[in-house]
Amino acid sequence: MNFIDKLNRRYASKMMNGTPVADEKIENILEAIRLAPTSLGLQAFEVYVIKNPQIRQQIYEQAATGQPQIPGCSHLLVFAAKKRISTEMLDEYVSLIRRTRDFSEEKLTSFRNMIGYLEKRTDEDNFAWAARQVYIALGFALAAAAVEEVDSVPIEGFKPAEVDRILALDDKNLASLCMMAIGNRDEALDYNAKLPKVRKPKDQIFTEL
Amino acid sequence: MNFIDKLNRRYASKMMNGTPVADEKIENILEAIRLAPTSLGLQAFEVYVIKNPQIRQQIYEQAATGQPQIPGCSHLLVFAAKKRISTEMLDEYVSLIRRTRDFSEEKLTSFRNMIGYLEKRTDEDNFAWAARQVYIALGFALAAAAVEEVDSVPIEGFKPAEVDRILALDDKNLASLCMMAIGNRDEALDYNAKLPKVRKPKDQIFTEL
Repeated sequence: MNFIDKLNRRYASKMMNGTPVADEKIENILEAIRLAPTSLGLQAFEVYVIKNPQIRQQIYEQAATGQPQIPGCSHLLVFAAKKRISTEMLDEYVSLIRRTRDFSEEKLTSFRNMIGYLEKRTDEDNFAWAARQVYIALGFALAAAAVEEVDSVPIEGFKPAEVDRILALDDKNLASLCMMAIGNRDEALDYNAKLPKVRKPKDQIFTEL
Repeated sequence: MNFIDKLNRRYASKMMNGTPVADEKIENILEAIRLAPTSLGLQAFEVYVIKNPQIRQQIYEQAATGQPQIPGCSHLLVFAAKKRISTEMLDEYVSLIRRTRDFSEEKLTSFRNMIGYLEKRTDEDNFAWAARQVYIALGFALAAAAVEEVDSVPIEGFKPAEVDRILALDDKNLASLCMMAIGNRDEALDYNAKLPKVRKPKDQIFTEL
């Protein structure tokens, strides 16, 4: 099956049967997230990978009633972006580049100066920017799940403040943005599985110049 | 080559050699964008697919100097989100669902009422929300290019207001958010091509619970 066929096979699976997804498939989905590009390469986000049924139940009851895929999935991913971009974060990033690439100190200093504009922007602007990057990673994760032929669904309909509280994200300078449930569809109950995909025709999305 | 190998092969290709990418590969990248999931399925965005070298040159000179991949690429994609979510847009979306799925009028009405909350939110909040969805589509496009083994790079470093003016996006209730250049790397000039990828180790991104 080619990539486009796999993307056609994927759908928002909201009723899952609670069976586990193989570790190897989860690892590939997480690796796709890690490899996703982000602006400046900063990767100003973290992902909580929640297999624990009690924590998923707590999120379901306290932050996302009406999302049965949270108790029903195999793994729940919570994507959270950094609330503030700190000087330490930028310095650590330059250290990571130094350890990975054979760059001159001059080049590293010049790059560090360039990204310094983030320290002057408001936390609100930086968070909005970091949040968008997280959605590239969410896209990579959804595509990787489709490639693995594992069911999944992105989730925005939840109370972020409650999820932040349950996972103590604020202490880590993080705020939750979106979630993704990974699991196996319940063939009998998941009415979405049988429905044709609703998408705009090409001419309503693309303008060729 | 498996999906993860392909994601490892991709990198931010900033020096491209101007040769064309086959239409079939471009079509697959665009189809991945069209199939990308969006919140509520609304697809509140459009993509300009710019092959025309004069328009790319104009964008380069007036909105994105310092981004040589814009004149050097084969196709430049400009992703733009809807600035305002209108009543007509929501009604058209429900019509699209009606034409695609065999839903009762009762179910369609109930869905239309549910998504009505968008009409009550501020344009600013709706735009921030629509913008994030666009980045899922950008993620799908970058993943599809990697699968096709075509070089690409996401671009945020440009003046959105200038791009909006050049493409007359405001008249279409659109505002540009990000771009993506698709093309073939210049083996001699693209120093990025030979550098190891910089990514945080797994334990700095993922917390397993």
